[in-house]
Amino acid sequence: MTAEIIAVGTELLLGDILNTDAQFLAKELASLGIGLYAQSVVGDNADRLKQAIKTALFRADLVILSGGLGPTDDDITRETAAEVLGKSLIYHEEIYDAIVARIRKKISESNKRQAMVPEGAIILHNDNGTAPGLYMEENGKTLILLPGPPMELEPMFRDKVVPLLKEKTGVVILSETVRLFGIGESAVGEAVKDLMESENPTVAPYVKDGDVTLRITARAETNDAAHAMILPVKNHILHRLYDYVYGFGDTTMVKKVLSYCLSQNLTLSTAESCTAGMIAAAIGDMPGVSAIFNEGFVTYSNEAKEKNLGVPHEILTSHGAVSRQTARAMAEGVCRRTGSHIGISATGIAGPDGGTPEKPVGLVYIGVCIGGETSVRKCLLHGSRNRVRRMTVLNAFDEVRKHLAIPNEYFND
Amino acid sequence: MTAEIIAVGTELLLGDILNTDAQFLAKELASLGIGLYAQSVVGDNADRLKQAIKTALFRADLVILSGGLGPTDDDITRETAAEVLGKSLIYHEEIYDAIVARIRKKISESNKRQAMVPEGAIILHNDNGTAPGLYMEENGKTLILLPGPPMELEPMFRDKVVPLLKEKTGVVILSETVRLFGIGESAVGEAVKDLMESENPTVAPYVKDGDVTLRITARAETNDAAHAMILPVKNHILHRLYDYVYGFGDTTMVKKVLSYCLSQNLTLSTAESCTAGMIAAAIGDMPGVSAIFNEGFVTYSNEAKEKNLGVPHEILTSHGAVSRQTARAMAEGVCRRTGSHIGISATGIAGPDGGTPEKPVGLVYIGVCIGGETSVRKCLLHGSRNRVRRMTVLNAFDEVRKHLAIPNEYFND
Repeated sequence: MTAEIIAVGTELLLGDILNTDAQFLAKELASLGIGLYAQSVVGDNADRLKQAIKTALFRADLVILSGGLGPTDDDITRETAAEVLGKSLIYHEEIYDAIVARIRKKISESNKRQAMVPEGAIILHNDNGTAPGLYMEENGKTLILLPGPPMELEPMFRDKVVPLLKEKTGVVILSETVRLFGIGESAVGEAVKDLMESENPTVAPYVKDGDVTLRITARAETNDAAHAMILPVKNHILHRLYDYVYGFGDTTMVKKVLSYCLSQNLTLSTAESCTAGMIAAAIGDMPGVSAIFNEGFVTYSNEAKEKNLGVPHEILTSHGAVSRQTARAMAEGVCRRTGSHIGISATGIAGPDGGTPEKPVGLVYIGVCIGGETSVRKCLLHGSRNRVRRMTVLNAFDEVRKHLAIPNEYFND
Repeated sequence: MTAEIIAVGTELLLGDILNTDAQFLAKELASLGIGLYAQSVVGDNADRLKQAIKTALFRADLVILSGGLGPTDDDITRETAAEVLGKSLIYHEEIYDAIVARIRKKISESNKRQAMVPEGAIILHNDNGTAPGLYMEENGKTLILLPGPPMELEPMFRDKVVPLLKEKTGVVILSETVRLFGIGESAVGEAVKDLMESENPTVAPYVKDGDVTLRITARAETNDAAHAMILPVKNHILHRLYDYVYGFGDTTMVKKVLSYCLSQNLTLSTAESCTAGMIAAAIGDMPGVSAIFNEGFVTYSNEAKEKNLGVPHEILTSHGAVSRQTARAMAEGVCRRTGSHIGISATGIAGPDGGTPEKPVGLVYIGVCIGGETSVRKCLLHGSRNRVRRMTVLNAFDEVRKHLAIPNEYFND
């Protein structure tokens, strides 16, 4: 089964909005095992849209259109698609009623166009907007019309279109993701090269900001069979890359570490130089974290490190602010000052200036003090000032994870 | 002059990456006054790409391809485009030398493909990667090939393609942007409705995270003429929206406020509750800011507010942590503790829980103490926990801007 996507909207051709619908639909089709051969964007122009639909229906089995289902005059997708298929439009009272119930007022005559449906089409009810989606079949081809706003299109596709397409393809597709940190994409690729060569289940890596994700996708006739295909692959990955795996599914390392600390009632405090509050901000991102997070310090200057964290003056003068010794003294100092279980520190050279041959830009020391025991991680990070700081935050949480020896099993929930 | 864009890459059809190149090119073409009629995506497949290029060249005067210029076998744009135009490929030693100089090692025979150029093409040197861009003209049509990675494509388009296209269209296009904060897009639209109706110069609003940008674009025969058309429009905007304008051109409010503080040697300190380090982190984002930023405090708990900032216990018990009084005491306390010129505080309810009818989620107080004078801004922000915190940061810097009465003229540099 092959597919094409057409996004409709002059605002896309002007660059006013980014075509995230295309990426969403592309990913979803890939996970359904449906080959996407082309995607295109056309403006709110009936002739060009008609031509685009005709061409796509000629080349592909499935054509998905997004956008142009709204109430205004420049929304022409519904009428144009019906014309291409040679269908007349029929007014549906229940769609009109749903729109009125939603916007809580009567709509004008011209807006009633949203209640018009090409004959024979399956109506996909819109839980997040007024325009319903439409699913049509004709001469062995399938044409699906979806509203453009992602918050309407995405749930409609997942909840209403996917079941119809699954029924059509008769295949169950199941995916699981394994999340890793502290290892590069190419090293992951080396370690699971054989698994990545398999066609079913497939294993595909994605990388973002030092986070590597492996997605295992199996196609089978039943859910159980797909699950049974994924399990051994997942075990292989865990076996080979155990130390780097921090979680499964839709999560982040920061979330995982904080969830663990919350579950164990471990209090946290921060002492930051180069990150200047980013570690604390990442902690504060989690709702309810105030139960374990009371305070943090941003100590940019040496003076502040001495005054607020009790870093000994001698350490700063003999080893410098960016040193293993200072990172250790900062983490231990913040534990002492706050009485928290875990103290996290970071000191480094974020750049672009301030580097020397001995202490280059990207050199960062991270200290983690837990119950009087302190570990210090030395990182040599590359990239922009912003990237160095963001990678420092992730490394800090990873050091907490390692230091606490948070078991992988925990993450299986 | 009409244009089409074709993005090449199977990774786009799999949804692995978002097609930001298309949006970038669409915006640029719009600002050049070139009408974009369609954009499409094809995979790394020679037949389908050939067909797409032929169709686009038939319909449009200008066709821009992005991606598929790399060194591997699935990069086929160069060869396919040359075939469509009936051009042979010629090896260019200087491109080979530039690649070797860039990656500091010899490249394999197969990688030499990047040094092959269709006869008659103008070479667009790549300052940020190995693959050069190519500019070709044939039978009154223009075909431009650009590398896919945005950090290579964007500067190449701006620096090398735009001058060629401007020469072609014989028109000078000049844009200036005015940046505003503290006013909604619709209120801005009301205030400059008449200006937005003009066709030349055009005035278009963009909004992101509370920041509203107005872009004024003029088309004329000379640079001076375009400039002369923009000036009165810019003055109208300033006249009507003076209080909200914080800068011009490619900047942010945080940068503008920090630049001013740096220029005046005003030291800063932070005292944060709901933002938990985000204000400090935004300050730390600017290189060289250590000259004026020594320290900050994250005081999530009441105890930390008392201990680290000297917020009186009575204020916390009688008014609560989220109150005008606490924000004031935090800002004044951090100035006292650090001796800095400016103290910035934030305390609020970021959500999703913790709201009450009197103090709902999104209620935030921001304190700014400068030279013993304290102002407190009350905000009622909506959206997610993350948005409430991000908007608090922007409001905090805006409060500093207002409090310091940083003159608009300053921003004219």
